Amino acid sequence: MASLPPQIPDGSPFTLENIPFGVISTKENPTPRCASAIGDYALDLHALSISGLFQEASVTDALSQTTLNAFAALPAKIRTSVREQIISAWENGNLTPDCLHQLTSVKMHLPVDIPGYTDFFCSLEHCQNCAPMSDGKIPDNFFHAPSAYNGRASSVIPSPSLVRRPRGVYWRPGTKEPVHGVSQLVDFELEMGYIVSKPVPYGETLKVDDARDHIFGFVLLNDWSSRDIQIFEMPPLGPFNSKSFGTTISPWIITLDALHAFQCAPKHKTHPLEHLRYNDFDNGTFDIKLAAYLERNGRRYRVCTSNLRYLYWTPFQQLAHHASANCGIRTGDLMGTGTVSGDGKDETGKKVELGCLFEATQHARQPLKLDGEVELGYLEDGDSIILSAWCDDGQGRALGFGECRGQLVGPDAPIS
Amino acid sequence: MASLPPQIPDGSPFTLENIPFGVISTKENPTPRCASAIGDYALDLHALSISGLFQEASVTDALSQTTLNAFAALPAKIRTSVREQIISAWENGNLTPDCLHQLTSVKMHLPVDIPGYTDFFCSLEHCQNCAPMSDGKIPDNFFHAPSAYNGRASSVIPSPSLVRRPRGVYWRPGTKEPVHGVSQLVDFELEMGYIVSKPVPYGETLKVDDARDHIFGFVLLNDWSSRDIQIFEMPPLGPFNSKSFGTTISPWIITLDALHAFQCAPKHKTHPLEHLRYNDFDNGTFDIKLAAYLERNGRRYRVCTSNLRYLYWTPFQQLAHHASANCGIRTGDLMGTGTVSGDGKDETGKKVELGCLFEATQHARQPLKLDGEVELGYLEDGDSIILSAWCDDGQGRALGFGECRGQLVGPDAPIS
Repeated sequence: MASLPPQIPDGSPFTLENIPFGVISTKENPTPRCASAIGDYALDLHALSISGLFQEASVTDALSQTTLNAFAALPAKIRTSVREQIISAWENGNLTPDCLHQLTSVKMHLPVDIPGYTDFFCSLEHCQNCAPMSDGKIPDNFFHAPSAYNGRASSVIPSPSLVRRPRGVYWRPGTKEPVHGVSQLVDFELEMGYIVSKPVPYGETLKVDDARDHIFGFVLLNDWSSRDIQIFEMPPLGPFNSKSFGTTISPWIITLDALHAFQCAPKHKTHPLEHLRYNDFDNGTFDIKLAAYLERNGRRYRVCTSNLRYLYWTPFQQLAHHASANCGIRTGDLMGTGTVSGDGKDETGKKVELGCLFEATQHARQPLKLDGEVELGYLEDGDSIILSAWCDDGQGRALGFGECRGQLVGPDAPIS
Repeated sequence: MASLPPQIPDGSPFTLENIPFGVISTKENPTPRCASAIGDYALDLHALSISGLFQEASVTDALSQTTLNAFAALPAKIRTSVREQIISAWENGNLTPDCLHQLTSVKMHLPVDIPGYTDFFCSLEHCQNCAPMSDGKIPDNFFHAPSAYNGRASSVIPSPSLVRRPRGVYWRPGTKEPVHGVSQLVDFELEMGYIVSKPVPYGETLKVDDARDHIFGFVLLNDWSSRDIQIFEMPPLGPFNSKSFGTTISPWIITLDALHAFQCAPKHKTHPLEHLRYNDFDNGTFDIKLAAYLERNGRRYRVCTSNLRYLYWTPFQQLAHHASANCGIRTGDLMGTGTVSGDGKDETGKKVELGCLFEATQHARQPLKLDGEVELGYLEDGDSIILSAWCDDGQGRALGFGECRGQLVGPDAPIS
């Protein structure tokens, strides 16, 4: 039963150029199911698939799962054709009302089961700004290979979510006396994440120019961080409890198909070792604009801006380096790009591309003054952080990522 | 059809006091299934369960899975009763031949799907011996809380297995020139691992005295490590590719029921912060004897010995600290205890409780002379490392863990 497709409102992140993938449930049907989003609507892909929209049995099977892992594991060509079928079904008004839900009425779930979560540390500007957290120097290895640590997949949560301020061990300020208590210095980190599609078997490696074939798409990622716990626990093994009390990701995966038009060269010219060397440097990353906002007492303030292309090591180099030691990469694995900082300044000459409060406030020594009215050192209970990302096509915003929203609450506040 | 139970050979690790859990397949039936082991036999628990041995439907369901996750998630009381039913079925000769397979004829699989793998760094002696790998000092935080890093679950493999020597980035010896090449300095680490039973939900924490309720059992764990890659990549985020080319675990999980008789006080008296303080310090860990062997050219040499109780921070303290930041702990999670070193010496005064070659050879500066005939610095292609563990009851070995065996092969050798 064909009908005119609903209007896509101006400024919607979910344009016809986008077609993101996520997992929704509704009040009437609490079973999580695969979905896409256009304009103000979530498209129930399981229902669409039952209605016979997709020909391939492998697609129907994959879209009947409660996560997108099986869909992500399908060959890229098949995923691309699903995207095209969704677009033409929308354009032709071939979507029955029972497949459409107002986005405001659906609950978002983690889009994939995440077998492994890795977080990189690949922004030169972030590294320079964070050096005071360790010995003040840029590590010797930074310019030769992407740095990373394995994160904790069990604490990755979908936007919007509540995050408890953690307890942990840290040095009583100004002393070498350890205390176990409520973290006083909670920060956010402005990152993107990407989800693995085609796996790399254990024991095998990956060429940097092939890495794009292994990425399903991108999300926003807030790597909530406790700076007092982090400073205590970093030496020698790196971050652990300081970054495992919550990692919020935006729930819609923006595919490489959608991002294809926004490929670009990375900001930094590098001289990488062979396993990180591109044939196609000029399309080595994506021009994705980023911003982070604070919401406090019902008002919203912009904290910083950035761009994915600022990363010294690109997502493709990250993934190739990750796989280079034979570890195996699995469908659904989440890779955090690391905090994306830059060196851009505002009209007053102040740096504004500082992707976390440790950088932006110099460890709370110079709190930010937002809109002349709010002072921001580290986060207070009740503060919300909203990350956003979008791609411009020269005529404005061509597509967006939706919100990555999380609210910090007290250590014993209810979170579900 | 009752018959006399087969003899349990002297020296078998799988005594009636043991009753480990694992996952097997056979040539005739390649589907992985839950199993136990007694003497020279694997007991097919799925087949036993179909034969009606276990009354509870939850047990029958759990034992029909291809991993032990569902079984591990059952209440401890039910798992204990399954153990008792297996023992009495064996004693009464109530095991039909189709449920029994010669251990030498079965293939072992990973016993659980591992949603998260964490590795600790909690042996004071190991930490002292490894200090030269970083800045030569014991980190200030060591005495106040267990250190750990998140490992890579995708590279955990069951014994016996082949492990490829990895390629990676390291400093050309004696220079600050980075190279991407075949790792020259491959080491093993003598560790145990433990598997989580009852989960801790995201956002919740765990008391140290309750930690034992969350542990299904123990395995041996060889944390294969590339020292050249590790030294390159450690600052500031800790180990990553240097420890993700293979982590071999012994395939049989030895339960806390079996280990109960070997509870003991840890070697070190500590003065922990409140969240790590025991009510029952005297039963705070287990007396489990450990050894590592090298096999080269068909001959076996003992490399080192140790004991789980030497750990400065016990497994229960590790798990409580891990959960203390709200990260959530899942059924099937694998926790590595970290290398277990000690300060014991042989009759010549030489330290023999050094759990890796970095320690035992001082980074290959003083190669080991084994049985006066083999010189061991780091590992050579073709070397096998075999870890073993057992518990004594005063009259000899009461139970053992079986082998944790892995063979290092060349970077491009076939591994499957």
